[in-house]
Amino acid sequence: MTYQAPLDDIRFTLHRVVGVADVLPEGIDSTDVDAILEEAGKFAGSVIAPLNWGGDQHGAVLENGVVRTAPGFRDAYHAFVEGGWNSVGGDPEFGGQGLPIALSAALSELWNSASMAFALCPLLNLGAIECLERHGSDAQKQKYLAKMIEGTWTGTMNLTEPQAGSDLAAVRTKAVPVGDGTYRISGQKIFITYGDHDYTDNIIHLVLARLPDAPPGVKGISLFVVPKVMVGDDGSLGDKNDLRCVSLEHKLGIHASPTAVMAYGDGEGAVGELIGEANRGLEYMFVMMNNARLNVGVQGIGIAERAYQHAVAYARSRTQGKPLPGSPSQTIIAHPDVRRMLVLSKVKIEAARALALEAAAVLDRAHKGIAGAQARGDLLIPIVKSWSTDLGVSVASTGVQIHGGMGFIEETGAAQHLRDARIAPIYEGTNGIQAADLVGRKLLRDGGAAMTALIADISATLGQLAEQPGDDLAVVAQNLSIGQSALREATDWLLLAAKEDMRLPFAASSAYLDLAGIVAGGWMLARSALVAQADLAQGGGHAAFLEAKIIGARIFAEHELVRATGLLESIRAGSKSLLQYDEALL
Amino acid sequence: MTYQAPLDDIRFTLHRVVGVADVLPEGIDSTDVDAILEEAGKFAGSVIAPLNWGGDQHGAVLENGVVRTAPGFRDAYHAFVEGGWNSVGGDPEFGGQGLPIALSAALSELWNSASMAFALCPLLNLGAIECLERHGSDAQKQKYLAKMIEGTWTGTMNLTEPQAGSDLAAVRTKAVPVGDGTYRISGQKIFITYGDHDYTDNIIHLVLARLPDAPPGVKGISLFVVPKVMVGDDGSLGDKNDLRCVSLEHKLGIHASPTAVMAYGDGEGAVGELIGEANRGLEYMFVMMNNARLNVGVQGIGIAERAYQHAVAYARSRTQGKPLPGSPSQTIIAHPDVRRMLVLSKVKIEAARALALEAAAVLDRAHKGIAGAQARGDLLIPIVKSWSTDLGVSVASTGVQIHGGMGFIEETGAAQHLRDARIAPIYEGTNGIQAADLVGRKLLRDGGAAMTALIADISATLGQLAEQPGDDLAVVAQNLSIGQSALREATDWLLLAAKEDMRLPFAASSAYLDLAGIVAGGWMLARSALVAQADLAQGGGHAAFLEAKIIGARIFAEHELVRATGLLESIRAGSKSLLQYDEALL
Repeated sequence: MTYQAPLDDIRFTLHRVVGVADVLPEGIDSTDVDAILEEAGKFAGSVIAPLNWGGDQHGAVLENGVVRTAPGFRDAYHAFVEGGWNSVGGDPEFGGQGLPIALSAALSELWNSASMAFALCPLLNLGAIECLERHGSDAQKQKYLAKMIEGTWTGTMNLTEPQAGSDLAAVRTKAVPVGDGTYRISGQKIFITYGDHDYTDNIIHLVLARLPDAPPGVKGISLFVVPKVMVGDDGSLGDKNDLRCVSLEHKLGIHASPTAVMAYGDGEGAVGELIGEANRGLEYMFVMMNNARLNVGVQGIGIAERAYQHAVAYARSRTQGKPLPGSPSQTIIAHPDVRRMLVLSKVKIEAARALALEAAAVLDRAHKGIAGAQARGDLLIPIVKSWSTDLGVSVASTGVQIHGGMGFIEETGAAQHLRDARIAPIYEGTNGIQAADLVGRKLLRDGGAAMTALIADISATLGQLAEQPGDDLAVVAQNLSIGQSALREATDWLLLAAKEDMRLPFAASSAYLDLAGIVAGGWMLARSALVAQADLAQGGGHAAFLEAKIIGARIFAEHELVRATGLLESIRAGSKSLLQYDEALL
Repeated sequence: MTYQAPLDDIRFTLHRVVGVADVLPEGIDSTDVDAILEEAGKFAGSVIAPLNWGGDQHGAVLENGVVRTAPGFRDAYHAFVEGGWNSVGGDPEFGGQGLPIALSAALSELWNSASMAFALCPLLNLGAIECLERHGSDAQKQKYLAKMIEGTWTGTMNLTEPQAGSDLAAVRTKAVPVGDGTYRISGQKIFITYGDHDYTDNIIHLVLARLPDAPPGVKGISLFVVPKVMVGDDGSLGDKNDLRCVSLEHKLGIHASPTAVMAYGDGEGAVGELIGEANRGLEYMFVMMNNARLNVGVQGIGIAERAYQHAVAYARSRTQGKPLPGSPSQTIIAHPDVRRMLVLSKVKIEAARALALEAAAVLDRAHKGIAGAQARGDLLIPIVKSWSTDLGVSVASTGVQIHGGMGFIEETGAAQHLRDARIAPIYEGTNGIQAADLVGRKLLRDGGAAMTALIADISATLGQLAEQPGDDLAVVAQNLSIGQSALREATDWLLLAAKEDMRLPFAASSAYLDLAGIVAGGWMLARSALVAQADLAQGGGHAAFLEAKIIGARIFAEHELVRATGLLESIRAGSKSLLQYDEALL
């Protein structure tokens, strides 16, 4: 099964719907962006994608204390670094290309479609890079950043401990100052993605730990940089640090991505340096979470696209049953129910992609200090993370279904996508935590201001839709309007309910996030359809592609936006009863 | 993770909601049924359930041409047979206990919760038994039935071939008469569940094949009984037949259930006997499909219940984060969003269980010749099969989610449930085929008569609800009424749309099946709530259980029945646009 990067849709969305001209650095224009996408598509399809299935079957293995990645992955990583793909978004001062998050996100979709397990290494590295760029000292930046941006070394994030999953207040790893400006780190961390591997000579771990005099809870957590191999001031590699990979997890999916249990300080303690100020570690982690959560959302889109392409290829080739009258094809793609599954998968992927790229461009604008962008980004991120990763699971599951019995056979490869996809709603904050974040931090805290601004932007799109001719856009306008009203009413209800019983908005939070995702996704497709309509009116572009954008928006409106009213009812009427159910009878 | 059979709910549903008194054989009353359920619960929980995880990790293996099942499975199977569990539903003339399908279905849920992979062997055997009971000659019955009902031998169904998945018209396996009343069978069959195993000395294969002079397509398929080991007229075992297991599939789940590629006739051909008349094989298979599809639906419920119990146990024990004001617990079960996931899983499982037991009792009544029962059973079966198996996947996926990062680690066991559950929407006719069956054979063929009768029964329940006091049942009545109207309107639309374009009802079929499932499930929970309300008014029974039945019906109404209007819109407005999407752009 080959993978073909969906470049037409990405380009159309980036340039025409989201509009990224304002966030491109000087000297880079849309032609350059297209050329980068073209090359990335080739690399993803020809170098990474062919390794995906073998990587799943072989997995990363721990042998004699050393992690060996699956066949071909090390070479592919080196080609990735040599191609400059790791440095796309990095700070030019340290060798990065300084390209916007919107482009990085578009590329990230391609890497994740090609192989989620492969793409996780640069994804985690990016998080560590961002953290050091923002909070590292000049000396730390000089020591680590250029190599990490280049990809010669990779970075990891060490948060979780056995007793502390999402609840970082419970972190116990210790950091003891030794008087020379360094610290000795000791403790165990779990679920460390690419905590060890054989791609590079060094791995730069960012580790949450507590100082001896730290206050309890989240206010006593500091962040440390702890290299696998000590780095001299001249950048040379020295002794091995006191840390090791104890074991690798046996996981449902992403087998080629080593998920390590890490032990720090078996001996005198691993040598680490404090990042920024003491006891502010959690704050530093949260700052970079927007980007990491966006990237996990993009993983959901990437795996959905891969699974969808896999299913389309099967549906085009599988002969089964009699074609219905009026169907041109003998293969199952002509069966109306198979068609339904494929078309709905495709339009939902396009909605999620457009929303993720919108959010990415908003983050770029926030970095440029554009008014309102940070609040919009903060609002969109939990929606992108959860809605896209749930989509990844559902499209991958639909992909298995379209394959029939063959889908359940591992060699077909459809099941791997489902297994891989299943992690994305969990890590980087479970989707339940995203929903709580949306309702708690992004809605209640500002009294609904950011959401009201989004709803107002949807009104502007509704105004543009009202001026268009044609049945299709009229349906889009009508259903988007119903969705927008539902979102507004649900927002009002949440703000009121919080005053009555603080548990109510959190009981409603997942349904509210779904509703926001559907409406925001429908909004993005409506904007796509408006662009397509204008292009068609001018006779420009690829007519079939543009027409599909319009009918696709209508299909999303008729199959997804129609769910909005039911979700509003669930939120408004059903949150209280959920809490009334006797816990003892569960 | 232990499994506790949900006997309270099963008994309440069987006796008080569905009402099975009229289908129990003479001499068996509800006390006997309860005693049987009690014993079955113990057997499932203590003998089968502990093998489930090991069975997944070890799997069934083919060694030197012989299939060896996972450790403990053979002994458990023998205990199952000795306990008489295999013969519950069998014809008393051949040693069966003659108990109704409703009770068999209730027991089947327990076996499947304990281990889907284990339960598949009796499930397939039951299908073969039913087929021989109905269509076998007296000699065939004498030869095979008693041993199969006892479980000393097991039966299989051999339908699928590499080129013929759901499309049995493409079957190529040959059957050549040799003049002595027997046939020589040759060909390859795939996806044969328990096609070979080490539980028993003999395996009785029912095989679809073509006679030399058979007409092409589905009208030229005959059914043959082909034993693994030849059976003498005195019941003694003779020579091995010319058939073998070529390989076992490497599957996403149900690893302990051997899924065989079977080769018939490597030599002179496997010896088989014709069942019934030539060229009527497909008809015979279809007759028994109602029961098999019901049982697969029950598998979905069984795996959902197991995954749910697994998640509840974790949620009760996992400390994480701060409790919200008003929550008694420090563990994640107190988090409103976790509560939402658990409560919705539970009420949906109860709805699906009640509907499956209702359908089972209806099949029992059909066997007794009660007017209308066969049509009602035919209508309900595709709904039970699809709706329950989709639920199995979604609840198992929710179970993984509730476990957070631990859910992705195989040793936790939550992921196994998801992997196991994923087959049920595929086999015994994919859920898309069920939806096509519902719309094509069960709706369009009788002009909506059977569905209209179901809708009328819902009206009767609505009448009873209207007489009840209290807010909860008023909400149930209102939302069930809205759901019923949506189902009626969708039915009317489908009947009309079929006249315009035959593809339209099939493009809408999956949404229509969902709608029918939600409304029928809501109807069952409304009936449960009515019983609970009456019991509470009389001061009888376990008050907390009865109150949970009422609030549970309300929660289903507020979270599931509210989806009905959106589904109606998808069906009515969205079926045409789905078909308009350019196939070339998929």
